[in-house]
Amino acid sequence: MAEKIVLTGIKPTGKVHIGNYIGAIKPALQLADNDDYTALYFIADYHGLTFIQDREQFNQLSYEIAATWLALGLDPERAIFYRQSDVPEIFELSWILACLTPKGLMNRAHAYKAIRELNEQIGADLDTGVNMGLFTYPILMSADILLFQSDIVPVGKDQIQHVEIARDIAEHFNRTFGETFKLPNYRVDENTAVIPGMDGRKMSKSYNNTIPLFESSESLLRLIKKMKTDSVPPNEPKDPAQSNIFTLYKEFATEEQVNQMKDRFQSGISWGEAKNELYQVMNSFLEEPRQRYFDLISQPEQIDEILSRGAEKARSLAIPLLERIKQRIGRYL
Amino acid sequence: MAEKIVLTGIKPTGKVHIGNYIGAIKPALQLADNDDYTALYFIADYHGLTFIQDREQFNQLSYEIAATWLALGLDPERAIFYRQSDVPEIFELSWILACLTPKGLMNRAHAYKAIRELNEQIGADLDTGVNMGLFTYPILMSADILLFQSDIVPVGKDQIQHVEIARDIAEHFNRTFGETFKLPNYRVDENTAVIPGMDGRKMSKSYNNTIPLFESSESLLRLIKKMKTDSVPPNEPKDPAQSNIFTLYKEFATEEQVNQMKDRFQSGISWGEAKNELYQVMNSFLEEPRQRYFDLISQPEQIDEILSRGAEKARSLAIPLLERIKQRIGRYL
Repeated sequence: MAEKIVLTGIKPTGKVHIGNYIGAIKPALQLADNDDYTALYFIADYHGLTFIQDREQFNQLSYEIAATWLALGLDPERAIFYRQSDVPEIFELSWILACLTPKGLMNRAHAYKAIRELNEQIGADLDTGVNMGLFTYPILMSADILLFQSDIVPVGKDQIQHVEIARDIAEHFNRTFGETFKLPNYRVDENTAVIPGMDGRKMSKSYNNTIPLFESSESLLRLIKKMKTDSVPPNEPKDPAQSNIFTLYKEFATEEQVNQMKDRFQSGISWGEAKNELYQVMNSFLEEPRQRYFDLISQPEQIDEILSRGAEKARSLAIPLLERIKQRIGRYL
Repeated sequence: MAEKIVLTGIKPTGKVHIGNYIGAIKPALQLADNDDYTALYFIADYHGLTFIQDREQFNQLSYEIAATWLALGLDPERAIFYRQSDVPEIFELSWILACLTPKGLMNRAHAYKAIRELNEQIGADLDTGVNMGLFTYPILMSADILLFQSDIVPVGKDQIQHVEIARDIAEHFNRTFGETFKLPNYRVDENTAVIPGMDGRKMSKSYNNTIPLFESSESLLRLIKKMKTDSVPPNEPKDPAQSNIFTLYKEFATEEQVNQMKDRFQSGISWGEAKNELYQVMNSFLEEPRQRYFDLISQPEQIDEILSRGAEKARSLAIPLLERIKQRIGRYL
């Protein structure tokens, strides 16, 4: 095991799209391949319970997201890949940490405050629609992070606060009971290029403009053909920097291909041709993962086995630390 | 195992006094002896963490309270007697229940509201001094109760709300995921006679007027002699119903002794004599438990063993139910 721990929680939230892949999964997979780190990647299924309260959906989404990451190349022999719900130590630690968490810290959590503001605008009771999972999940997230002495937690900008909360709680614990937890650091990926969706706006489920990752090749082609472009006619120069087609293209093409494509934009490639080229590189990249994904999803027992082995490894780290924590608080002397 | 489960959580809060014994422990021990019930009694050590954040104290208090109950006759072969912190399933369930608990339910919890009111009076931020353990403990308590399909939870009047919250959460879960939890009922002990302390007011740590349960016989005698009485002189009739000495006496004496004592009050027993009689019955009742208590507390490994065996029994009930719950929410199909 490499000395430094990098930890990432993966929320099981419906179909993964190209934007998720480029923005989050791809850099995480690169990090998992870095010899300087031991990667702990987990399916945050119990976090999902704050909003997925449907049996079939809860079950399905975990398998889908696990299959997605495995299909895209996450190596469960290198990374420790597990389901949160297979590591009960997290929940015991979560209670311990709750006792060290001032309520004010939760009152100020962004996600909770955003809901309150919405409720205020519509004149509803401020806590309408807030369950206690939603209110307290930054504590569970702190337990996720601290139970493994994580060094680095890669996050989007909107998640920086979660790592800061974990640090605050860890510091409070260390002050009260003696040096126990490592203070985790967040790392915001610099490459936060906006991935454009079908309509040119940021690709996002809420805009309904996504290209799902594992569409059939026919469906992928159809979606790409429907992508919005401007009305610059064929044979006129086009600006690659302004083109959603090009932005996606360069994520899947080789450097050489990218340079050639720049030239072709210059010399006035038609949008139809450009789309076709985009389809070619995307499809050839996605062909294998797509196949692996459908193989895996049709054999959930294989996914279970991989995740169980991951959970065993995770617990072999978690159990001794939890014992040490319990010693600190006085459960053992 | 008897069909009906009666569950009681025991907070590890410092020295037990005569008032605790008469008001809470004695009726609980009687219930544990009742063949109609399987008694699950547990040391709520992790609840204690909301306010005991001192290693030695946390450790010591659990042993003291466990030794107290065992010394007073709790039979660990009949009752399932365990430490909360030895049953990790409780904490996992607590998270699941949190996702089914509207935040409003916690906002309205009495203990939390009382703190807010105090803060308001002194002009402090309303959540000052509130940690998230304190705010969320009714959920943990619900997990304590629901994980064992408890039928009856004996409570003081101030704790009725906790059982109501557990019912609310259980109903919400059952509605969302299908019939799973039994709805627990509270039972308020009818015999809520006020046990008088040294100064005649209710015996309570906050009045600093308690008689600790396991004082040496010398110290017990000294304390009883210091008890406040009125100035009715010897040889004048005294009203047993008005006497703190008599109120305590009848809790430890046989019926025959009680009747005789009534007569002696009538015929003007002196307070000195009455106190001596009280000492006799109390001391002879307490002699054995006191000895057992000090034996136990000097052998914590014996207490550990008893509680570990209890935890095994408790977990043999908890584990299959938690699996069923996880099936309901979709962790398994």
